[in-house]
Amino acid sequence: MAKIKVGIAGYGNLGRGVELALQQNEDMELAGIFTRRDPKSLVPQTPGAKVFALADAPSMQAEIDVMILCGGSATDLPEQGPQLAQYFNTIDSFDTHAKIPQHFAAVDAAAARSGHVAIISVGWDPGLFSLNRLLGEASLPQGASYTFWGRGVSQGHSDAIRRVPGVKDAKQYTVPVQSAIDRIRGGETPAFTTREKHLRECFVVLQPGADAVAVEKTIKEMPNYFADYDTTVHFISEEELRREHAAMPHGGFVIRSGQTGEGTRQVMEFSLKLESNPEFTSSVLVAYARAAYRLAKEGQSGAKTVLDIAPAYLSPKSGEALRAELL
Amino acid sequence: MAKIKVGIAGYGNLGRGVELALQQNEDMELAGIFTRRDPKSLVPQTPGAKVFALADAPSMQAEIDVMILCGGSATDLPEQGPQLAQYFNTIDSFDTHAKIPQHFAAVDAAAARSGHVAIISVGWDPGLFSLNRLLGEASLPQGASYTFWGRGVSQGHSDAIRRVPGVKDAKQYTVPVQSAIDRIRGGETPAFTTREKHLRECFVVLQPGADAVAVEKTIKEMPNYFADYDTTVHFISEEELRREHAAMPHGGFVIRSGQTGEGTRQVMEFSLKLESNPEFTSSVLVAYARAAYRLAKEGQSGAKTVLDIAPAYLSPKSGEALRAELL
Repeated sequence: MAKIKVGIAGYGNLGRGVELALQQNEDMELAGIFTRRDPKSLVPQTPGAKVFALADAPSMQAEIDVMILCGGSATDLPEQGPQLAQYFNTIDSFDTHAKIPQHFAAVDAAAARSGHVAIISVGWDPGLFSLNRLLGEASLPQGASYTFWGRGVSQGHSDAIRRVPGVKDAKQYTVPVQSAIDRIRGGETPAFTTREKHLRECFVVLQPGADAVAVEKTIKEMPNYFADYDTTVHFISEEELRREHAAMPHGGFVIRSGQTGEGTRQVMEFSLKLESNPEFTSSVLVAYARAAYRLAKEGQSGAKTVLDIAPAYLSPKSGEALRAELL
Repeated sequence: MAKIKVGIAGYGNLGRGVELALQQNEDMELAGIFTRRDPKSLVPQTPGAKVFALADAPSMQAEIDVMILCGGSATDLPEQGPQLAQYFNTIDSFDTHAKIPQHFAAVDAAAARSGHVAIISVGWDPGLFSLNRLLGEASLPQGASYTFWGRGVSQGHSDAIRRVPGVKDAKQYTVPVQSAIDRIRGGETPAFTTREKHLRECFVVLQPGADAVAVEKTIKEMPNYFADYDTTVHFISEEELRREHAAMPHGGFVIRSGQTGEGTRQVMEFSLKLESNPEFTSSVLVAYARAAYRLAKEGQSGAKTVLDIAPAYLSPKSGEALRAELL
């Protein structure tokens, strides 16, 4: 059977993760990596992988079944999502929650017009976590839902620290409060403040001569990012940051605590413990690329999210095999 | 908007659970309870609920949008599934894993012929657990999947003990081995024996004059049910059994431990902690009844499983609301 030909648009952590994930899926193959940089400057991990200029992608529709967009949500995906959905079935990991309706509309317009399937906001949050929030609410209509993130590196918070005067480099970990999780698991449905759900732990390398006290105060009082949290700041050397904090672990928990009948308590929980956030996200993107390919073959088109995809489309197995082996 | 009219076929623990679950879903209403017993002998929990003879169901197609089949998998569902799919969109909780392909084929033939949607094997295992086994395998193709059940009451094992000569009554709890779960959560992918995954804990009321030693030996050596497990037998009074072991708690864990890239460990876990197994299963059945109704409205037909249902169909919310609130 012909393999599903996948293109990668953007070659950062996510693009590199998709490249590795494709090697684990026998029904798929890497058709090409597309970059805004000089294609010759890029060294793929896969021997023989072809690299093209992103600008040339529109001329390669025949070679690509699904294009996985691996750019960032701030500026890349709002532009590339609608643009590439004109030519390809696409998958993206757009994760600016507040702007999802807007992104969906823009991508939907392009994909519907061109007759392609575009699955947006794929990954784990949004993505598998969203799916579990829905399953929780639908299975236990009377109850409360909780999402916790971590322990893991938040890129946005690490960046925010790096912008503080006197900071040379930094890594920020979001840490869920264990006692809060334990209460929910025990069947309680408390209303938590922001501070009660997560801690923030910062590892900071100072510029020579910087004022540690002032830096710590600026971080801890930063609105939105840190002011509403119990924040710990550790000053470490550049060497220690590189040695101990180079990885990108993450994870989290979606918990639904509900009641059925006359006060019967029921708790559902989905959790992830990831040594590499981008590699896991990439792996999920690839599974949804399979779904996009199949839905397009069935004649569907337009933008979709993980909530619109029947799980069977994610697996290379047939319906018969799934029912016999997994159901 | 008109409510979805739901019929309940069979009024045991599951049927009673569905009746309660319907009260938590504002877009649905109980259209009638169908029983093989004398309808007059049945006392519904809902004031004013109508009870009909199951034999009269075929004449009530206009009054029922979805029929939820609440019979048992051993003899009721294999017969009622194909029978009622001739007249109604149906949901069932058929859970004899080995016979699912056969049940699917029989129900599919009837539902396809009559133009109805029939979702089989709905609940948590098969059901939400199956869905998570699929998500695990699709997201982490290189890895191992584990399902643990409990701590919870196994009806089949309790029944097996009750058939032992000298036993008056019994309750059996399936207990997952915590150290096994901890190893998987830590990223290992061990091959477990049956004994290493679950314990079996039995609470037994003896007949007067029965030989406790002989009963314990018979239980512990029972093939398939207990011989492959570390089994504990507690002899208790009838009064204690009634007081301490009347509830039907259950739950369990689906864990996928996989690797991405060059040996990066990633762990996904879905778990349930249920005070009442039948009430939770019922609640899931009702959510899938909503999906069956909508799919039938779209003109779909035939048998389906939870793996074939896009999650959005389970929620009363619109696509717009789901994207804005849950994604």
